[in-house]
This record gives sequence, C-alpha cells and structure tokens, in this order.
Amino acid sequence: MRTNAEPAASTPEPTSPSTEIRRLAARATDDRAALDAFLDSQLVAHVAVAEGETPIVVPMGYARDGDRILLHGSTGGGFALRAAARRRVLAVSVAALDGIVFARSLFDSSMNYRSAVVYGVPEIVPAEEADAALVAIAERLMPGRAAELRGNRRKEIAATRVLAVPIERFAMKVRSGPPSAAPDDDPDVWAGVVPLATVAGEPVPAADVPVGAPLPASVARAAGHA
Amino acid sequence: MRTNAEPAASTPEPTSPSTEIRRLAARATDDRAALDAFLDSQLVAHVAVAEGETPIVVPMGYARDGDRILLHGSTGGGFALRAAARRRVLAVSVAALDGIVFARSLFDSSMNYRSAVVYGVPEIVPAEEADAALVAIAERLMPGRAAELRGNRRKEIAATRVLAVPIERFAMKVRSGPPSAAPDDDPDVWAGVVPLATVAGEPVPAADVPVGAPLPASVARAAGHA
Repeated sequence: MRTNAEPAASTPEPTSPSTEIRRLAARATDDRAALDAFLDSQLVAHVAVAEGETPIVVPMGYARDGDRILLHGSTGGGFALRAAARRRVLAVSVAALDGIVFARSLFDSSMNYRSAVVYGVPEIVPAEEADAALVAIAERLMPGRAAELRGNRRKEIAATRVLAVPIERFAMKVRSGPPSAAPDDDPDVWAGVVPLATVAGEPVPAADVPVGAPLPASVARAAGHA
Repeated sequence: MRTNAEPAASTPEPTSPSTEIRRLAARATDDRAALDAFLDSQLVAHVAVAEGETPIVVPMGYARDGDRILLHGSTGGGFALRAAARRRVLAVSVAALDGIVFARSLFDSSMNYRSAVVYGVPEIVPAEEADAALVAIAERLMPGRAAELRGNRRKEIAATRVLAVPIERFAMKVRSGPPSAAPDDDPDVWAGVVPLATVAGEPVPAADVPVGAPLPASVARAAGHA
C-alpha cells in the first residue's frame, strides 16, 4: 500500500507503465502558488523541531501571511519559542486526506492527499506587530469575526506570542485521481476512489445565547450557510 | 487565540473562574484507552525524527496494532527506516480538528481538537511478519477490503517495509465543549461552536469499471452506505 507521503526518494524507480501512472498520480511540486493555495485551505499544522536526538512535534493553528507562516504560542510555554531563541529550524507540516484509493490489489491501494512541509527559522513577532498578527490568524480561522468583536486588549496581546516562520524551503506532494493500474489486475474487481472532505455542521450556541438569536455573518459563513 | 495544542506548560496559571473553565475545556489525559480509541479513529500521522539540528516530519498512513503503531514505508526510501537503523526515537503525531470555537473575544476564540503524540524507537517488521502487517494496515484504512482481493505477492511484500513504533510514551490532549467565558464578555455577542467532521462522498469508479457495477462491501462501508 502506498500511503507514504514522503518526498520522492532520490533512487529512480524502474520504468514501467504502472510506474508511469504512479508518477503522474503522486507528484512533487515546487509551485509556490500551489503551496500558498494549499496552506490557505487548511487550519492545523504539525510543527516539529529537533531538540538533541529527540524530535518534538506539536499540532498548532497557523495562518499564512505572505511569505511567512504565523503560529500562535502561549507566553512562557513552548518548544517553538525556544526554537526562535536558539535560531533552530522549524518544520511546519500540513496534510489533507482527500480520499481512499481502492485499487485491485492491496499493493496499489493508496490515499489521495495534499501535503506540504515548510522549513524556516522562526522569529517572534515584535510587540508592535503582535496585535495585527493575532488578527491575521483569527481572520484565517474565522473570516470576518474580528470585525464583530471588540479589539484585543493590551494585556491579551502581552499574554500571547506569535511566531513567524519564513517560507525559506518547502516540499509539496499531491496524489489525486484513480488507482494505479497493473497489467495483471483482475478486471472484475471494482476499483475507484472514496472521496473524503471536511464539512461544517450546524452551529452549537453557548448555553447563554438566547434561543433564536441570529447567527453573525462569520459564523454563518463558517457553517457553510453563505 | 488559544489554538495551540502543545502539552500544558509546567508553570501554573493564575486561578480564576475563566482559567478553571479553560482547564476543563482543554485537558491532557494519560488514559491509554482514550489514546487507542483516538488513534483508531484517524488515518494519517505526522511522523518526526531529529536528524542533527534539522527536524524531519512526514505525513504517513498508520495503523495501531496493539501496543505499537505500524507505518508503511517504501524500500530504500526513508527517514523512518534510517531512524530504525540508528535506533532513534520517532514522534508520531495525530490530530483531529473537531470544531471552531467562536468566543466573545478573539483572545478566547479557539479550536476543538483531539491530539496525541506517541514516542518510540521504531523497528522494521521482520520479513515473515510483513504480510500480516501490510494486511493490518490495509484493514484499518479499508476494513474488509483484503478479503475481496488476491493476497499480497512475494515481490510486493519484498518491495515494502513496515515499521513498528512501540507505544513507549505518549501525550494526549483534548479540547471540547463551548467557548471559555470571561466575566466582562459582552453578552449580546453570539458565542458557540461550529463543529467540523470528515465525511465520505460518493465513490468514484475507475474508468474501466462497468456502469452500474455493484459496490463491494468494503467500499460501501467506507462511503457510509452501510
């Protein structure tokens, strides 16, 4: 089963019709616009740093802001803040599972996915830019919400740290489309793809929201009403 | 915004009603049964290793098999295989985004999620167990599919490597429920949660599947028909 989204090994694979199809199906790209579109479609990254021989990896909310990725960390907490202090590279990994690929053999069964890893040395966003960075992260998670709420307070801004990871290097890989075919596949076996997608459900109001209160535009949009 | 799924910092937070609620809302657990249930509900892990000062992190399909996590790697490729050869710890990170938490301030806005990181030194599954391990991974991704297909061939088994990461240490964290509330929140602002879930769409047959061919049971189940 080819469920591994690792960047292609440097060893060339033997060429065969089956290999050709696989190469078309799961391909690496260095298209920066494709990277940006993918990053902007997702909300959670797995952020990794090497501390000695031990890897640390933590899921975090993120937002791309031009040529950098903003990450939200709590004051005083955090491997990512330590990485910034020590000028260590962070790896920011994002993946979306788009489908389960039912081939005619287990060997060719697979997943459709988009994945990207961005590498960069993080910097702490300076205090005078922290408010704008927090709003930028919120706008990605909840577009339009910031305008519906009071502004961030000074103490709230002081209680958070935003890290910016410059997009210095990246690797992106996508598999899409039908299963790979092999010449000796049994044609009587069904083959194809079961697509997967993330969908929003109906908003659940907090207990103190009056029954029948209208949804704000940002919530309606997040729930797919708009 | 509290979108950071990092394990709780060791520094105690000041106690306040708001803090109490947050502690209830986003909590760490060492419940192994909860870990197993969560791992068994997801399909993709971000697997990290430290190579020198550079972190490597790659999304991979996985399957929990008792007290270990099986990872699928290609022959000759792979940081994970190198980690096994060097007896280095792998970190296996899994996260599910369950909802967007619309609080009455950006500061208390958040995500609902489940996340876990498992640490262990990987081993390559011995050749005589590789077929069973490949089937176990397939059964997690596509329950029932293996019985619908021919068995793995010797050359297919030889062309893959399965890694087993023993569940030696883990950290799990869950945030669920409504937004945190602060005493000075504006009660006229709507607050609540927009739930998110992964759903399967209608199966897309390969081009050579006859029109109207019945879906195998495994595909119907994956598509939520059963």
